[in-house]
Amino acid sequence: MTEKIRRRASSKGRTLDLIRSSGPISRVELAELTGLTQATISTVVRELLTDGVISETGRGESTGGKPRMRLEINPASRLGIGVHIGQDYITYIVADLAGTVVGRKRVDGPGDDSPVSVVARMTDDIESLIVGLDLDRHSLVGMGLAMPGPIDRIAGTVRGVPSLLGWTEFPIRRALATTTGLQVELDNDATAAAIGEYWLGATVGYGSYASVYMGSGIGSGIVVDGTIYHGLSANVGEIGHVTVDARGPLCPCGNFGCLELFAGPRAIMNKATDAVARGELDIPLTGKTSVDFAALGTAAARGDATASALIQESADYMASAIVSMVNLFDLPLIVLAGNAFSTTGSIYVRTITRVLAERAMVRDIHPIEVRVSVNGNDAAALGAATLVLQERLSPRSLRSVAP
Amino acid sequence: MTEKIRRRASSKGRTLDLIRSSGPISRVELAELTGLTQATISTVVRELLTDGVISETGRGESTGGKPRMRLEINPASRLGIGVHIGQDYITYIVADLAGTVVGRKRVDGPGDDSPVSVVARMTDDIESLIVGLDLDRHSLVGMGLAMPGPIDRIAGTVRGVPSLLGWTEFPIRRALATTTGLQVELDNDATAAAIGEYWLGATVGYGSYASVYMGSGIGSGIVVDGTIYHGLSANVGEIGHVTVDARGPLCPCGNFGCLELFAGPRAIMNKATDAVARGELDIPLTGKTSVDFAALGTAAARGDATASALIQESADYMASAIVSMVNLFDLPLIVLAGNAFSTTGSIYVRTITRVLAERAMVRDIHPIEVRVSVNGNDAAALGAATLVLQERLSPRSLRSVAP
Repeated sequence: MTEKIRRRASSKGRTLDLIRSSGPISRVELAELTGLTQATISTVVRELLTDGVISETGRGESTGGKPRMRLEINPASRLGIGVHIGQDYITYIVADLAGTVVGRKRVDGPGDDSPVSVVARMTDDIESLIVGLDLDRHSLVGMGLAMPGPIDRIAGTVRGVPSLLGWTEFPIRRALATTTGLQVELDNDATAAAIGEYWLGATVGYGSYASVYMGSGIGSGIVVDGTIYHGLSANVGEIGHVTVDARGPLCPCGNFGCLELFAGPRAIMNKATDAVARGELDIPLTGKTSVDFAALGTAAARGDATASALIQESADYMASAIVSMVNLFDLPLIVLAGNAFSTTGSIYVRTITRVLAERAMVRDIHPIEVRVSVNGNDAAALGAATLVLQERLSPRSLRSVAP
Repeated sequence: MTEKIRRRASSKGRTLDLIRSSGPISRVELAELTGLTQATISTVVRELLTDGVISETGRGESTGGKPRMRLEINPASRLGIGVHIGQDYITYIVADLAGTVVGRKRVDGPGDDSPVSVVARMTDDIESLIVGLDLDRHSLVGMGLAMPGPIDRIAGTVRGVPSLLGWTEFPIRRALATTTGLQVELDNDATAAAIGEYWLGATVGYGSYASVYMGSGIGSGIVVDGTIYHGLSANVGEIGHVTVDARGPLCPCGNFGCLELFAGPRAIMNKATDAVARGELDIPLTGKTSVDFAALGTAAARGDATASALIQESADYMASAIVSMVNLFDLPLIVLAGNAFSTTGSIYVRTITRVLAERAMVRDIHPIEVRVSVNGNDAAALGAATLVLQERLSPRSLRSVAP
């Protein structure tokens, strides 16, 4: 891309972002807020009107003469599909330019199936979603694919993900692009979830936050001043692989004493399963980690001492790793997302809030809030859907930032 | 500041940054690279010429007619003083717009002196530096003050820093501003050191990196895509207070099992002092941590087994915390800075390089380089000096980033 084309794309994205966040808004106000010239704004607005992405509305205050035309977003004019390949579930979300969920579908996770057969199944799922919702294919800008890291965004692959070992080097992005005919963008599922939390409204009042996602593993996504933190290769926020015991056991990731080994649902369920076998705990076990962990949370909530101790142990380690993270990133908000918090959220919120207030370096400088996501199960897929919309419009930014 | 003034300041900073990084450069090229209009560039350039910050040069290629005038920075036109209050030393640096060190002074650290008496001493030091270098006071834009965190940038204080406990709530920024008559900016010393590394040339080839600073404590500063990572309140990169053992001892910071307790020069010297008392180690002890740690490093370098084992233990814990940090930030370069690495750098570089290659999540996605700073002792003060220059010119950015 030449510098000029890149700049035009960036002006367009920034203008559209402002119309989305602040519309209805006039061309004059857009010029003032973006710092772009009136002529540039006119050109950019004309293109956006032609694209059908925005429309004119007469709702501006009259200044005596003819009422100022204002511009507003046309949310349904562009749609993105977001797909989250988790361990237990594959979630599909269709979202529009306003981040509104237009359609939604959840199916079984990949399990031990080969990537080729999972791609075949997903292609059918996506096709039936498009047909079922009667979507206009011309409004579909593409598909965001959220997967656990490490990911290789350039190659469009995952590499060495413990739950998806057979997928290493499989060209998942290219495969789905070929079978669906859609443009596909790959991102880290925890980063996608952080973006999703913004659209779900879980981050209201904060421009900077981390969303800590716990499914079968633990990851996090980081947003700073409204900008998604991507690092060098989008493999960021791997809080599940922050060491909580440097002399601890080897993790499948290759590191030692990782948080996941002490706090993750799989580790906790190993202990819970032993407790069940010893007759110290009475919960139904299905062998599906997320389902069983939810049952353990329910038992803890009704006061079972063994269940409470196990969840508390996980929360204590999680809080320790989050203090380390806050000591590195200096963030004011932690959002807890993912199905592992569905029945256990209050224990984690209480523990992490207390530990941050007691131990974080910045505890006397500013407060740190901890919240549970309102709909953490959908966050990664929704984030992936909006990401593909934004990737075209205003890369890496959640909202308009003045130049 | 109104939006318009803010924007003008930003245009001016960006233009100056481009002239610094890419000059000599023409007005036409500046307009192309910034995306600003020719008219805006003309106004901004006129102001910069009037300020004396840039000058015109005739060195542009002739295009047949009259040679194009090009613009270049006038480095000596603005100077900044940087001060680093470390535990053992206070370092003063005077730097110009090109990041060149114009003057330098190092004196004893604050020790147990009251902040009031340290301020009096510093005021004399700064005055004698200005007089000794025969500096034009009109060219001095201000003073950057680098101190260990947690800092309160808004109040201009440090709070609860273990080595400066008597300083909590003392208005150090205001005190120095009053006694010196200079505008004073306070920043985290590890962040200042990260900026200093850029100017020292230690980060060549990389836009993103962390500089891990080890004096008596351990901190780090983070630069992402040429932009200083500040977090919410500039209390970032506290890698010394990343937990390496969640069940470990209480740290003076309030957290448990922090890296500093296992890898910091103070912790290692406690063990070394015991070894000396037991007759297992023969090094001179002065009681000054940084001096004694350097002596331990020298003993390790000449092959002393006890000294080597102690330094190696520190390097192993440090490497573990750096893996956690890289798993969160996804960075391609770690620069080791600070006097603790002066005699031990090669052991740390070797250990951290190996451990990152074996254990970091991104190890198969991209390499991670580890370097020792060329002049880590000056990095924080130099960074503080350039920070105050940049604070006026192009906030938070190390180099020009296309809009």
